[in-house]
Amino acid sequence: MASPGSGFWSFGSEDGSGDPENPGTARAWCQVAQKFTGGIGNKLCALLYGDAEKPAESRGSQTPRAAARKAACACDQKPCNCSKADVNYAYLHATDLLPACDGERPTLAFLQDVMNILLQYVVKSFDRSTKVIDFHYPNELLQEYNWELADQPQNLEEILMHCQTTLKYAIKTGHPRYFNQLSTGLDMVGLAADWLTSTANTNMFTYEIAPVFVLLEYVTLKKMREIIGWPGGSGDGIFSPGGAISNMYAMMIARFKMFPEVKEKGMAAVPRLIAFTSEHSHFSLKKGAAALGIGTDSQFANSTQVGFVPFLVSATAGTTVYGAFDPLLAVADICKKYKIWMHVDAAWGGGLLMSRKHRWKLSGVERANSVTWNPHKMMGVPLQCSALLVREEGLMQNCNQMHASYLFQQDKHYDLSYDTGDKALQCGRHVDVFKLWLMWRAKGTTGFEAHVDKCLELAEYLYNIIKNREGYEMVFDGKPQHTNVCFWYVPPSLRTLEDNEERMSRLSKVAPVIKARMMEYGTTMVSYQPLGDKVNFFRMVISNPAATHQDIDFLIEEIERLGQDL
Amino acid sequence: MASPGSGFWSFGSEDGSGDPENPGTARAWCQVAQKFTGGIGNKLCALLYGDAEKPAESRGSQTPRAAARKAACACDQKPCNCSKADVNYAYLHATDLLPACDGERPTLAFLQDVMNILLQYVVKSFDRSTKVIDFHYPNELLQEYNWELADQPQNLEEILMHCQTTLKYAIKTGHPRYFNQLSTGLDMVGLAADWLTSTANTNMFTYEIAPVFVLLEYVTLKKMREIIGWPGGSGDGIFSPGGAISNMYAMMIARFKMFPEVKEKGMAAVPRLIAFTSEHSHFSLKKGAAALGIGTDSQFANSTQVGFVPFLVSATAGTTVYGAFDPLLAVADICKKYKIWMHVDAAWGGGLLMSRKHRWKLSGVERANSVTWNPHKMMGVPLQCSALLVREEGLMQNCNQMHASYLFQQDKHYDLSYDTGDKALQCGRHVDVFKLWLMWRAKGTTGFEAHVDKCLELAEYLYNIIKNREGYEMVFDGKPQHTNVCFWYVPPSLRTLEDNEERMSRLSKVAPVIKARMMEYGTTMVSYQPLGDKVNFFRMVISNPAATHQDIDFLIEEIERLGQDL
Repeated sequence: MASPGSGFWSFGSEDGSGDPENPGTARAWCQVAQKFTGGIGNKLCALLYGDAEKPAESRGSQTPRAAARKAACACDQKPCNCSKADVNYAYLHATDLLPACDGERPTLAFLQDVMNILLQYVVKSFDRSTKVIDFHYPNELLQEYNWELADQPQNLEEILMHCQTTLKYAIKTGHPRYFNQLSTGLDMVGLAADWLTSTANTNMFTYEIAPVFVLLEYVTLKKMREIIGWPGGSGDGIFSPGGAISNMYAMMIARFKMFPEVKEKGMAAVPRLIAFTSEHSHFSLKKGAAALGIGTDSQFANSTQVGFVPFLVSATAGTTVYGAFDPLLAVADICKKYKIWMHVDAAWGGGLLMSRKHRWKLSGVERANSVTWNPHKMMGVPLQCSALLVREEGLMQNCNQMHASYLFQQDKHYDLSYDTGDKALQCGRHVDVFKLWLMWRAKGTTGFEAHVDKCLELAEYLYNIIKNREGYEMVFDGKPQHTNVCFWYVPPSLRTLEDNEERMSRLSKVAPVIKARMMEYGTTMVSYQPLGDKVNFFRMVISNPAATHQDIDFLIEEIERLGQDL
Repeated sequence: MASPGSGFWSFGSEDGSGDPENPGTARAWCQVAQKFTGGIGNKLCALLYGDAEKPAESRGSQTPRAAARKAACACDQKPCNCSKADVNYAYLHATDLLPACDGERPTLAFLQDVMNILLQYVVKSFDRSTKVIDFHYPNELLQEYNWELADQPQNLEEILMHCQTTLKYAIKTGHPRYFNQLSTGLDMVGLAADWLTSTANTNMFTYEIAPVFVLLEYVTLKKMREIIGWPGGSGDGIFSPGGAISNMYAMMIARFKMFPEVKEKGMAAVPRLIAFTSEHSHFSLKKGAAALGIGTDSQFANSTQVGFVPFLVSATAGTTVYGAFDPLLAVADICKKYKIWMHVDAAWGGGLLMSRKHRWKLSGVERANSVTWNPHKMMGVPLQCSALLVREEGLMQNCNQMHASYLFQQDKHYDLSYDTGDKALQCGRHVDVFKLWLMWRAKGTTGFEAHVDKCLELAEYLYNIIKNREGYEMVFDGKPQHTNVCFWYVPPSLRTLEDNEERMSRLSKVAPVIKARMMEYGTTMVSYQPLGDKVNFFRMVISNPAATHQDIDFLIEEIERLGQDL
């Protein structure tokens, strides 16, 4: 084991902030620390000025726990002149932290040290000289470190080491060259908001236990509905655990609107249902159809099948692979004509609503009955943050409510319309709204707009470079509608081959090998996949606020460096 | 608006850490700061030694943004001797933070200041002299502060103020006298782990983007299955967004096991299904039945109804209101005899499996086909952390997988069995495992055991005090099985009344009024509800690690203080 406190900022350790040669140092630090808000300064200060003897001298004569405990300063002087204290994590355990008696001091030190580890990670995340990933195969990673859970506790030094180790092997999703998913980047205000959410540690059932967060959800969903274009922002909605669940909500509500008896009687009381959606729509619609007892055959089915009733059209605004937008106005006309629920899955494309330049791609969204919109994708909000917006108010509540009397008491002393938990399929619900709300305050709508515009501009930059560059073939024609740029990289050895099966077979192996090399070098990450009759191609997407033109240039060079010998 | 930096720890502000009268102070602070891990010290240090002129003198001649920017130190000396810098949040915006050029310095300062606000809140949370809640009615709270979202950004000073304001109105769920929900308390290691999770900001789809977290989920679920008693911890499972979704998973998997064709064909291909569960089971089973197209009528129905096929028995281990445990061994015998899927909803009671003294209450759980177990309840893990454990491996995958080729590429370079995302109903999935894993390392199984035992002992303490105390009536006979203690407080004016309708009517109003007063005073929070023919009664539950015997005494005194005039 490493020596106590090594690797962490251990207050008052060997090199002498209380050293006789630097008599004013610790006191000076305290004076700075006093500026902490609300007395925290005093507490952090007390960490420096304990009444403990130096651990090396005192350990022999008392138990380790007692030694660690004794480090607390009990004097009244602020700043006091006691000899310096040492928070020795090797002798401290979780049971020494708050709410333990005398737990304040080790708690503040411990949380601050965790924070130092996190701050270091944040800074490294944005540093292009660091790896995106320090890749290890699963079996290696399982063996390299002891991850097992045991009967006995570990000390806080070990806990801090686990934090460092976990981050060592984590993907730096905020790294400027991380392009692997639709959700990339690490927003500093969003991160701060998520830390606060964790600290508030509550649940979205009721106003009673989450007063501010319930109001912020109300304010934020209303704003999102305004931006969709529903008059006065009226309607309903919820933050759900991801786009798949948001889409499933839409299917549930559409079914309930048409056949409210389904709630009590189940699908037995309802005709066979059919949903229309495009081939490129998200697979969550199939997951939802399977879960809801509708069945996956009920999508893409022949609409003339006897007895099938169309209950939902799900148009996609920004498909996952191509970033394509369905023609929402045309879909709206059809839905109106046949009185079918129109859902728009704008999980990925919804962010473009923030841009005056690009929001026309979603024209017609205002005619939808429901919209899935994931701020954790194009808007860079930390995971997770997905909203389902519904035009008709009250439907969600009617569809899902079960009146649990222990949560939704009808004789409370405040306006019960703020107890929105019963409209959810979940009982407990994580607070996902605060990071979006705080980011919105910090950036303004115009800040999100600037981010979206910049990402689309970068995608166009990439497209313009590679569309005529030797060794590249585009997967679909024309400028991308979103930031998705789909292409094959064709290594020199394949460029002269005829377009036959052998070439296709060899080409299909190129992207996986380049991707594996990217991960092993840790230089960048971008996704690839086959689609229909198209063999493996790269799908570049840009939602990362840290990415620049130089990072796009780097990606191209890196693909060529890693793939030229294939 | 407050003066710049007021209320926050503003590095190098007026009182002169770089003051001529204190020449060594800032340098001394720097020497302490150097001990930060991995160069963070240098960076924080540079915050103190900027090259900016004093804002008051320089503001006139440049734009505010430029003034704020200029505060960064550009010299190479570490610690340098430049004049002090001032991180003036009033002139800084989100766009000045990382990944902005020169964003490191304001980012570190901003995140540290957020952290100071959070540390202050944490310390206050455990302080019995602070209020559990600073209650405001919804309309008051909406009007007291401007929560609206706008086009234009706000500066970082305003953002920090929003953090403080949000916490001012939040419920202190870690407060020793917060008993309102099954999830209470604030664990310091769990909190640290949740901050780390936010910072890593990734998603549980694949090993590719969440290598460590995927392995930790594997390790942790296996350990939980071992504790349930499945041989070698074999089986399957997932962390889901809450117990309601975990229960819904169980229903889906049970249905799929019996009728795999439901996935493609829907409920039309399946006979009418019926699920058995007790009257006191959680309402999420009804929500699930409604969602899955089974229908809520299919619960508690008459099993002799023609054509209904029983597919699931859901036994509850720790009901929500009474904390009662169904007889799992008897349920297991019946399920075995009739070949029905046995699910145990141990969302609340699962924590007792960690206690050698109390785990007998779940005897028979090892015979279940699936178990819901929420570590965010009795085990005090921060929200949210709910597991569904399944005895048969592979079923979840078969039930839910849709083979999205852009996520689950079959030609990756590592062992694909770790890409577990396709077994989920969700697509993206939040990382919920790390806080449980880190707490388990910090406490050991024995630490969870001690917590559970202590909470049950406190519940028994409460029960023993009030069972014979004047003015109290117990809702059910005998010692509570879990920490749920259900009782009426009968004010003096009702004690002599006959047991008739008028008394019931008056008694039903007692708990709501006392609860409203508790919230207005902010002294404590405990839940109440009616149940069946029983009018409003208090349901005390204890999962809060901060609660002591004195807090139980306080609760009783407070109920009497607030209710004696009713």
